[in-house]
Amino acid sequence: MTAIRVDGATRLYAIVGDPIVQVKSPEVFSELFARAGMNAVMIPMHVLPERFEESMRALMGIANVDGLVATVPYKAQAVQFADRLGPTASRIRALNALRREPDGTWTGDMFDGLGFVRAFERKGEVLRGRRVALFGAGGAGSAIGCELAAVGVESLSIIDPRRERAAALAKTLSGTFPACRIDAVEAVPSGVDMIVNASTIGMRDGDGLPGDIGPLAADTLVGDVVVSKEATPLLRHAIRYGCHYVNGGEMMGGQSDALMSFFGRG
Amino acid sequence: MTAIRVDGATRLYAIVGDPIVQVKSPEVFSELFARAGMNAVMIPMHVLPERFEESMRALMGIANVDGLVATVPYKAQAVQFADRLGPTASRIRALNALRREPDGTWTGDMFDGLGFVRAFERKGEVLRGRRVALFGAGGAGSAIGCELAAVGVESLSIIDPRRERAAALAKTLSGTFPACRIDAVEAVPSGVDMIVNASTIGMRDGDGLPGDIGPLAADTLVGDVVVSKEATPLLRHAIRYGCHYVNGGEMMGGQSDALMSFFGRG
Repeated sequence: MTAIRVDGATRLYAIVGDPIVQVKSPEVFSELFARAGMNAVMIPMHVLPERFEESMRALMGIANVDGLVATVPYKAQAVQFADRLGPTASRIRALNALRREPDGTWTGDMFDGLGFVRAFERKGEVLRGRRVALFGAGGAGSAIGCELAAVGVESLSIIDPRRERAAALAKTLSGTFPACRIDAVEAVPSGVDMIVNASTIGMRDGDGLPGDIGPLAADTLVGDVVVSKEATPLLRHAIRYGCHYVNGGEMMGGQSDALMSFFGRG
Repeated sequence: MTAIRVDGATRLYAIVGDPIVQVKSPEVFSELFARAGMNAVMIPMHVLPERFEESMRALMGIANVDGLVATVPYKAQAVQFADRLGPTASRIRALNALRREPDGTWTGDMFDGLGFVRAFERKGEVLRGRRVALFGAGGAGSAIGCELAAVGVESLSIIDPRRERAAALAKTLSGTFPACRIDAVEAVPSGVDMIVNASTIGMRDGDGLPGDIGPLAADTLVGDVVVSKEATPLLRHAIRYGCHYVNGGEMMGGQSDALMSFFGRG
């Protein structure tokens, strides 16, 4: 591990969320910054909802704050603070990273989905042409759905107990990616060869699968956003059928690389 | 050196100033916190004057910010953010530290002078009864003058090219410490046995003594707030006459202990 230092010349990156104690980014990025030879740290900022706007404005006005990471529950609200949005953030109207440009303006983008795609690519998996069932149409699901469509999956079947949320995401993404067949559905359609859990199911003890998922062909790819020490129910299901998979930790690793590039340090 | 860590549970102390790159507190306190077994760091915050108020309000509203240090040029302006002031800050209307109390209110106090007094005490020097010539009636001079009067020096002769500033400080301190003879003067009076430089003279190459200071008796105590790698002209003068002295670095060391106690970690 590279030693982290903090002195008067240290540049700051802040991760803003509520709660904040659970986030891994301060350790991960402070270490990545040190390894890259930067005098910079990522610090946790526990910002309560009623103070979010004033806190963001103030942090962006502090001259040695060069970047911000937005986490739960601020990914959608953070969009208003960007002077310009990258492609994913502008499509799904949510972001998780903001950087200060040399002219003092701020650019924001969303990397939750890119990290997921990168984690599969790192394992040599090909996503283009896949027929995907996606559980969850919230922030993570939106970001992942957008990236999957962008890398050329053949179809995207979106499943969410809040049906209208699934329908809205399907409509948004269909407009941007007409070559991809995108629908909100009630259950996993036949013929899918990739299953993604972008819901919180699997986070709590006693959780089961995110939906009715039968036996899997071994060439089905499985991904789960839930970060957990032990394999989630969905990943245990994948392992049982010999499927390749990406877990929440690997997705975070894929995102670190993307964020370091975004912050101009990759 | 103890390793500094930053994670989601790290508590924050911020030093606010303009400029900020020169401050030593982030290194010194992050190290002291780590040695004390605290998961906390002190981070530099470069706050521009037009953003001072919004920045202070926002930082004080961030739930994992437990303390603030105010440095140049904000020591007087910071007073408005304290719900209550310690004894020195309330006398001189300036502070350099604010801490969050368990009930969420903020207490502020000024430790520039206490650090100076502690540094002499560490060396076994007795200040009570001294007849002091004090150069400089600005922030540092006010804080030091206040602490010297509080520990019972016999007299305090304050010298400042801005005569009205010296007079105002003499008046303020006289009201609080009637047992101490306090005057604004033009030159070092005869009979002084302690000389303190709280002006910036000695900071720049080519600077001389802060005033007309003749030969010194060896039992004269000398103190200089200027932080410098080499002895300042005043300290060289003290050394030449065999006087005991405290330099700017030792004063900062004395202040670190006082601040750690104030932050409840000493």
